[in-house]
Amino acid sequence: MLKVYNQEELSPAAIEQLVLRNTDPNNAISDTVYSIIEDVKSSGDKALRAYASKFDQVDLEQVYLDKDDIEELASTISRDQQRALEIAFQNIHRFHSTQLKRERVTETMPGVKCWREARPIERVGLYIPGGSAVLPSTLLMLGVPARIAGCKEIVVCSPPQKSGKINGFVAYCLILLKIERIYLVGGAQAVAAMAFGTETVPKVDKIFGPGNQFVTKAKSIIQGQTNVSIDMPAGPSEVLVIADETANPAYVAADLLAQAEHGPDSQAVLVSTSAELITEVNLELNKQVGLLPRQEIASAALANSYAILTTDLRTAMEFSNQYAPEHLIIESDAWQSITSLILNAGSVFLGHLTPESAGDYASGTNHTLPTSGYAKSYSGVSVDSFIKKITFQQISPEGLQQIGSVVEILAELEGLHGHKNAVSIRKADL
Amino acid sequence: MLKVYNQEELSPAAIEQLVLRNTDPNNAISDTVYSIIEDVKSSGDKALRAYASKFDQVDLEQVYLDKDDIEELASTISRDQQRALEIAFQNIHRFHSTQLKRERVTETMPGVKCWREARPIERVGLYIPGGSAVLPSTLLMLGVPARIAGCKEIVVCSPPQKSGKINGFVAYCLILLKIERIYLVGGAQAVAAMAFGTETVPKVDKIFGPGNQFVTKAKSIIQGQTNVSIDMPAGPSEVLVIADETANPAYVAADLLAQAEHGPDSQAVLVSTSAELITEVNLELNKQVGLLPRQEIASAALANSYAILTTDLRTAMEFSNQYAPEHLIIESDAWQSITSLILNAGSVFLGHLTPESAGDYASGTNHTLPTSGYAKSYSGVSVDSFIKKITFQQISPEGLQQIGSVVEILAELEGLHGHKNAVSIRKADL
Repeated sequence: MLKVYNQEELSPAAIEQLVLRNTDPNNAISDTVYSIIEDVKSSGDKALRAYASKFDQVDLEQVYLDKDDIEELASTISRDQQRALEIAFQNIHRFHSTQLKRERVTETMPGVKCWREARPIERVGLYIPGGSAVLPSTLLMLGVPARIAGCKEIVVCSPPQKSGKINGFVAYCLILLKIERIYLVGGAQAVAAMAFGTETVPKVDKIFGPGNQFVTKAKSIIQGQTNVSIDMPAGPSEVLVIADETANPAYVAADLLAQAEHGPDSQAVLVSTSAELITEVNLELNKQVGLLPRQEIASAALANSYAILTTDLRTAMEFSNQYAPEHLIIESDAWQSITSLILNAGSVFLGHLTPESAGDYASGTNHTLPTSGYAKSYSGVSVDSFIKKITFQQISPEGLQQIGSVVEILAELEGLHGHKNAVSIRKADL
Repeated sequence: MLKVYNQEELSPAAIEQLVLRNTDPNNAISDTVYSIIEDVKSSGDKALRAYASKFDQVDLEQVYLDKDDIEELASTISRDQQRALEIAFQNIHRFHSTQLKRERVTETMPGVKCWREARPIERVGLYIPGGSAVLPSTLLMLGVPARIAGCKEIVVCSPPQKSGKINGFVAYCLILLKIERIYLVGGAQAVAAMAFGTETVPKVDKIFGPGNQFVTKAKSIIQGQTNVSIDMPAGPSEVLVIADETANPAYVAADLLAQAEHGPDSQAVLVSTSAELITEVNLELNKQVGLLPRQEIASAALANSYAILTTDLRTAMEFSNQYAPEHLIIESDAWQSITSLILNAGSVFLGHLTPESAGDYASGTNHTLPTSGYAKSYSGVSVDSFIKKITFQQISPEGLQQIGSVVEILAELEGLHGHKNAVSIRKADL
């Protein structure tokens, strides 16, 4: 059962409290993560093997698998499963391919040409979580845009299974992505290995991917310590559903539960214009949660969730924008009337037949999205995350005549005479 | 005089050493910055007034200036100066306007529509350094893309001058940008004020702008502590010039000095295919440096700089890509033949008549750029920095038929039955 609040009765301070997420749940593990990072930095592969033995209960002879192993593992999954991964791959590829665009040259003044060109980030590291859930979908969500961007080196780390291998689904995705090696490294040690490099794991320029609290903490530490960058800060997953009287309570409940089953710290928020719908959704939650294999996790997450009764879709959207959800589902016949009001969200699902799980796996959009209110200032992962846009300019003699004195005046008023001289010395020769 | 190395004689380890920048020169001031942040967080405006008194030697009655003050200050600058600022504003506006594009809807499968829409980051904070150099150009470089993005609230902080005011150039830029208030707050305290909000300074979602080591450290701390994000990590400014025998040594020297005058920790690197050119540039440096008001600073920076003799433009570019310079100038008749080889750089200046200072002020490109090797994974500031791209999807009954079983298979293989059910429950009603 979701706790229910009435939006009209909530003070601004109460709303602020409701939309607040725990921004640093991981501080307690900080010392552990620092020591893992130091260990990997100084002992390299030896440390990686020791952690595999300690955390993954497996003794690794070598810390990676190559093409032959990957192909053998991939052949163990069914044709239906291969086909489903292929379709997901194709849709993700189709949508992300539209994101890489050539830009035109702008002549800001006659003879002054400016433009941007995209360049791939050369070496990227993708962290694919293992453990309780194995996530081949995450490999597709990170690997496809990396391939489209043209990254030269794609380093993939994932914790080994007890067998010392990876599962067949991840292996099949590696084949789809034409990635011929995977490093059997999990947790904070994987992040450290990709940030500093070891004898076998290459150092990268940017690290991507979700993970448990150790992975998240390690990413935040290396971002401060090195010039390796990260995709975004990460927190527990979350959904906000806006639903009115036209919504199907069974669908709404199913969507909230799909979020809740991620982890006990997940949050599922319902904002509705209909008190009746909220009641019906709560009944459906009770009914559906019992059918889930992960019902304990889902129940814990629901205890941490709530519903808000609101007067109309516009005020519902106001709350949503304050919350800035990772996933926003609008289950209303009138969805088209409010999409322009969306200011802060990671990914948005419109109408009664667009469940979040479609986007989690296969529709084509990315599922690596900003959580914890970061949707106010971050976008989800896209091809943009794997490129830099470099600005270029080229000035002709006419252009220098046009712009020269402007630069001289501005350099002088900022007291930077060397800047001025770089123009004057050229102007004198024109 | 620049130290000269021969690229052929440098080991990979020696090159790694040469391209290394000091990634955390600010660690020593960490405690001071932490305590300033805590102070602003707990005491708000009172702390801001106390720091203005301590660091800026000015007693502020109120911590901001409004429209009337700004207009009065702006009226004190000459018409030529106003005109130069206007042209810079127009060029920056023209180039950055091309960066906001509407994207098309992609139908990844029949009935499965995916697209992205840009939304402005609602509240942005711009830090404009004061102190030894006053930088109205930085206000234009941050304010113009913020305006184009459509940010609702643009908070500007800059340290007060001894008069308790700001200078007229900054005031005139505020008018061009239609920003009606400026907060008289500098240093780490400005970053803290925008990150947490005070009685008068609004809290923002993202903080932009260069600054001294206190500002830089404060940005890095609040990035880890809050969910306020920052434009990019910052370090000392730098240029790398690639020049061959077609280059004019006086121009090359002027460009190196324009960089060197920024600060004693700036770096100016020359990579040349011509030993003769390097010699001539060194002679020119000696000649030109004496003419600069900031010659002491420039000399200190040159002592920290070097030249590399290389065999051809291709190997020159290899070194440049390893260095990943904030600014890259290519002074060669053959610039067109090597631009495609550029992998890592912030902003690139092509040909003999394109000095960096054109881009610093007025050509239209942004001058807020990644330093310290961050050009390997970061782009400079652009309109992209002030928006989020939100993904949307909408699925029709036909679309759900198409994609439904794919999602079901993938959810099942990841063990997420709630995800599967969100599709199955809808498919059953089709």
